[in-house]
Order: sequence, then structure tokens, then C-alpha cells
Amino acid sequence: MRGEFELIASLYAPLSAGAPGAFGLRNDGALIELAAGEQSVVTVDAMVEGVHYLPDDPADAVAQKLLRVNLSDLAAMGAEPRGYLLATCLGPTIDDAWLERFVAGLAADQKSYGVTLLGGDTTRTPGPTCLSLTAFGAVPTGRCLERSTLRPGELLYVSGTIGDAALGLDLLQGRLELESEADRAFLAGRYRLPRPRTLLGPALLGLASAGLDVSDGLVADAGHLAEESRVGIEIETAAVPLSAAARAALDARPELLARVLTGGDDYELLFGVAEARAAAVPALAARLGLPLTRIGRAVAAERGTVRVLDAEGRPLTLGRGGWTHF
Amino acid sequence: MRGEFELIASLYAPLSAGAPGAFGLRNDGALIELAAGEQSVVTVDAMVEGVHYLPDDPADAVAQKLLRVNLSDLAAMGAEPRGYLLATCLGPTIDDAWLERFVAGLAADQKSYGVTLLGGDTTRTPGPTCLSLTAFGAVPTGRCLERSTLRPGELLYVSGTIGDAALGLDLLQGRLELESEADRAFLAGRYRLPRPRTLLGPALLGLASAGLDVSDGLVADAGHLAEESRVGIEIETAAVPLSAAARAALDARPELLARVLTGGDDYELLFGVAEARAAAVPALAARLGLPLTRIGRAVAAERGTVRVLDAEGRPLTLGRGGWTHF
Repeated sequence: MRGEFELIASLYAPLSAGAPGAFGLRNDGALIELAAGEQSVVTVDAMVEGVHYLPDDPADAVAQKLLRVNLSDLAAMGAEPRGYLLATCLGPTIDDAWLERFVAGLAADQKSYGVTLLGGDTTRTPGPTCLSLTAFGAVPTGRCLERSTLRPGELLYVSGTIGDAALGLDLLQGRLELESEADRAFLAGRYRLPRPRTLLGPALLGLASAGLDVSDGLVADAGHLAEESRVGIEIETAAVPLSAAARAALDARPELLARVLTGGDDYELLFGVAEARAAAVPALAARLGLPLTRIGRAVAAERGTVRVLDAEGRPLTLGRGGWTHF
Repeated sequence: MRGEFELIASLYAPLSAGAPGAFGLRNDGALIELAAGEQSVVTVDAMVEGVHYLPDDPADAVAQKLLRVNLSDLAAMGAEPRGYLLATCLGPTIDDAWLERFVAGLAADQKSYGVTLLGGDTTRTPGPTCLSLTAFGAVPTGRCLERSTLRPGELLYVSGTIGDAALGLDLLQGRLELESEADRAFLAGRYRLPRPRTLLGPALLGLASAGLDVSDGLVADAGHLAEESRVGIEIETAAVPLSAAARAALDARPELLARVLTGGDDYELLFGVAEARAAAVPALAARLGLPLTRIGRAVAAERGTVRVLDAEGRPLTLGRGGWTHF
């Protein structure tokens, strides 16, 4: 395999073209370029071979997942994605072909999301490959979205559809069967490659009061919002947006509702909007071509907790057999 | 061992105190706070257990080495260190005691270097632990030090002393013997814990024309400078600053000169200064209490290459037995 310097020069340096602050990856570090009135948002996520992805997963998809989970964190704060640093500890099975495909995945996503490689480090490990990526975004100074600013009475919205990725993982691991080939492909794709809501995030500044991305599961992430904001949150299960494929799975096995609400890896945005501003949400959804669905509200009662309600407004409890009434 | 959320809340969150942009590590990402007229410099380095450090190395020293190699990169660009993100993929042998000591090392260095934890990610790996750290510094906008701006005729300086870390590693691995206990401890310490020149770096802005940190070895890093700046570089071996301990080792075995000049892990700064400004260098050295030694110059001949000269100015060549005349 290529040595570190050749690897950087031949594979990675082309990914830094267009960012003068990256110095063609030939410097000790990089400069972050911002316009006046902008502030940097940063986030990092790591992925381990055999833990977060499988050794025979396509390398381009691995690279894209690594980049996209970070872009989702930026979107959650209302930041426009700009660039990233990459640290790779490559295991013994990694060869030139794997790396070329890994870099091709990054190159494709750089175009899709308007980001540029700014720097990195590449080393070897005798164990499984460990990848970490630090992403940089920009927000107008002092205006990023937070988790601690949701207020009682505000409405709770979620983007896209919920539960697809969890059901996709179940399909891939043989725990779920679905007749429709198209449904299976859709759900598996939603698990394999997140679609970070990078256009929605910045558009929420000035509209949303608080937000985060749904990665741990809708109920768990609503819980983070409830805890950080010291409010109660009510989620109306009947309102949670489902894809046609997820709806088909739930129609066959209603107990999968628990999996949908808690499965995670959705990478949708969950955000609060004051009632007085709610009229602007459908227009934003139409402009982005992305469903934005009201699924509940923040309340003053039971601060720090989430109540999951059935279609009649009765609270459900998560038990061994799924969600049930008390 | 503690779960991810408890680990972050109990061990890492206290390291973020004092940086409002870190949101107590409870957000999707962090904000980088800069003063007006400042620009962010970023760099990342990874370390793998069994490759960059030994499994039984003290965890606090591992943490400090990881942080300090990054701070050295910031210093090389003239940036004042501010904060960092940490991604840890922890192997099966890591327990609470190891993590507590790891965090204690970070806490101590946060005080020494004025940096704060801004965020991170913590995961598990079945293989050796892989650590990566992204460090942030600040420079006055548009004024960072680069590698490509050294000009023929400029003088080349290096901070501190060269070769200590390489000889320290030789001692630790039994390839070198030294009588003096104090000399042995000094050299081993220089290998184990770099002392990044974080005060020197920012002080070089406006004085130095170009610079980098010596991590690959003095000759190799001078080569990077020569290549990026398209100049020739001459290094006078007799001028290269040595510690008393390194001098003692070389007096006993003169062939160790090659090891000193190429060993690496020095984490000193190598920089160019125009002759007209050279008078300011001794005053800066006195102010910082850090030797700054002229070891050569940039020339117009043999651009992109480094010539190593003996005390009489004759070129030396690195061969199997060390540095020799042609």
C-alpha cells in the first residue's frame, strides 16, 4: 500500500482543492475561512469497523456515512456545512482499492453537500479500522440552534419520516420480512446512507426555538430536548410521519411501533416552533420539498420527561411487548 | 465501565467548563469563540495503542502526548491554542481507572496550555485503542505562518535542542546506554512528553518568514520547508543545538549524529528569518527563556533539497554508518 505522504498527495490532496486554507494538505494545520458575521460550529464522530459498519460494507458508503452523521449534527445547530478534517487508523485489511473507493465516496459527497477536506492524519492499526471526522459549519454569530431553549406551549416538529433506518437494519439482519422489493430497498437504503438535513438546519434559524437531530431514537432524543430545556414533551404517535414502506411494515406488525419510535439512526431534525410562527412551517416544507410534521408539543407538566400518547390522547408505556396503556 | 452518557457527564464535561461554546458537551456540536480580527487554525492527529504508545504507558502521559503533538502543529502556524475535540475508540483493556487518569492528564495540560475541551465522541473497539484529537488555535486574520514562504538568503533557526527524543527512545528500547541517571531521565522525558512551543509560535508572527514543527526529524522537516518554498537549505551540523545529555551521548558515540538529525519527535520549531530582522531573535529567546539557534540558511541553489554541512562547510551524506563525506 502507498505510504502516508503518497497517500495524502495522490488521494486526499485533490479533495482539498477549492479551500485555500487547506494549503493543499501540505501544512501543519488548516485555516477556517469565514465571512464577516459568521461563527464556526464544530462536531466530531468516530466509526469503528465491525461496530458501526461491517468489514465488507462498500468503502464509499462507509465514507459517506461518516461524513453525513457529522453534517447532521451541524444541521441540528442550524449551521451550513463547509469543511472537515479526517483521521484514519487503517487496519491490516485496507488496501489501495478500498482507499480509492473511500475517497470516491468523499468526493461525491463533497459535491452534494458543498464541503471540502481541510486536513487530516492517516496511521495504521493492527486492529479494526477506526475512522474519525471533524466537521465545520458556519452560523450567523450568536444565532445557532440549541437544545436548552424549548418553551412550554411550543409545537414540536420532525422532518422527513421516522423509523425507516431501524426497520432497514432489522431487514438487513433478518429480523423483519417485507413482501415489496421496493420497500425493502428503500428501508435498507435509509439505514445505510443517512440524508442529513443540511438545507433545513440553516433555514430554521429565526423560526425554530430549539432543535437537535434524531440519532438515538425519536423518544430518546425528545428526552434530551425535554431534559436540557426543563420542559415536558408530549408526542402523538398517530402524528409521527411514516414512509409508505414503514407503514406497510407496521400494518403487518403493529408492535413495530416501539421500534419506529426508539430505533434511532433517523438523522431527521426535531425542533420546536412557537405557535405564533407555526404558519411559516408549511411554506418552508414546500420550499425544501421535505415534509415537516407536527408531532407534539412542549408542556409545563412533568418537566424533563416525554409522554407518548395514542390516537385518543392516552399515554402509552414502553414495555417488553411494545407500547401499551398503563 | 461507565456508559457513554455517564462517561461524558462525569469525566469529560468538567473539562469543558469555561468554554460557553461547548454547551457542557450536551449539544450536537460546539461553537468556536473568536475575538474580532482572529481566524481559526485547526489540526488533527491520531495515536494508536501499540503503535504510537505502549499499552502500559501511563494514561495521563498518553493524553498529554496526544494533546501536545497537536498544540505543536498550532504553534508551527503561529496560532495561540484555544480548545480541542476528542474522539476515542476505546479497546477492551480500558477501564474506569485508565480513563480517570487519562482525563487527569488532559486537565493538567488544560491549565498549562490554556485550552478547553469543546466536544468529542466516545466509542468502543474490540481492537487496540485509537485516539484522535482536533485542536483549535487563533491567529490574527491572514497572518498565519506557512511552509511555502521561505526565501533564499534568509536565516534558519531552531528552538530548544534537537535529538533528545530520538535518543530517549533509543535508551528506553535498550539501544543506547548512558552513565548519568539524570541524562537518562532527561532524554526519556523528552521522548515521553513533548513540550510544544506554544508561546514561541505566536511570537514569530511578523518576525519569521516561514516555519514548521520538527516531528519527522530535522533534516526531513527542513526538506519539507525546502520543497514547499522551492529553495535550497543548508544546515551546519556544528551549529545544531544539543542538550548536555545529547552531547554526552554524542561524545561517546559520534555516529549518533545521524540519529540526532533525523530521529524526529523533537517538537521544536524550525523557522526562517530575514537577515535584516535577525537582531530581534536573541531578545525573543531571552524573553521566552528558550534557546533560538541559527543552524543554517536558505539558498537559491539546489532548490527543494537540504545540504548537511560539517564544521568546515563540507557536505555530508547519510549512509548506513551515519553521516559521511562523499
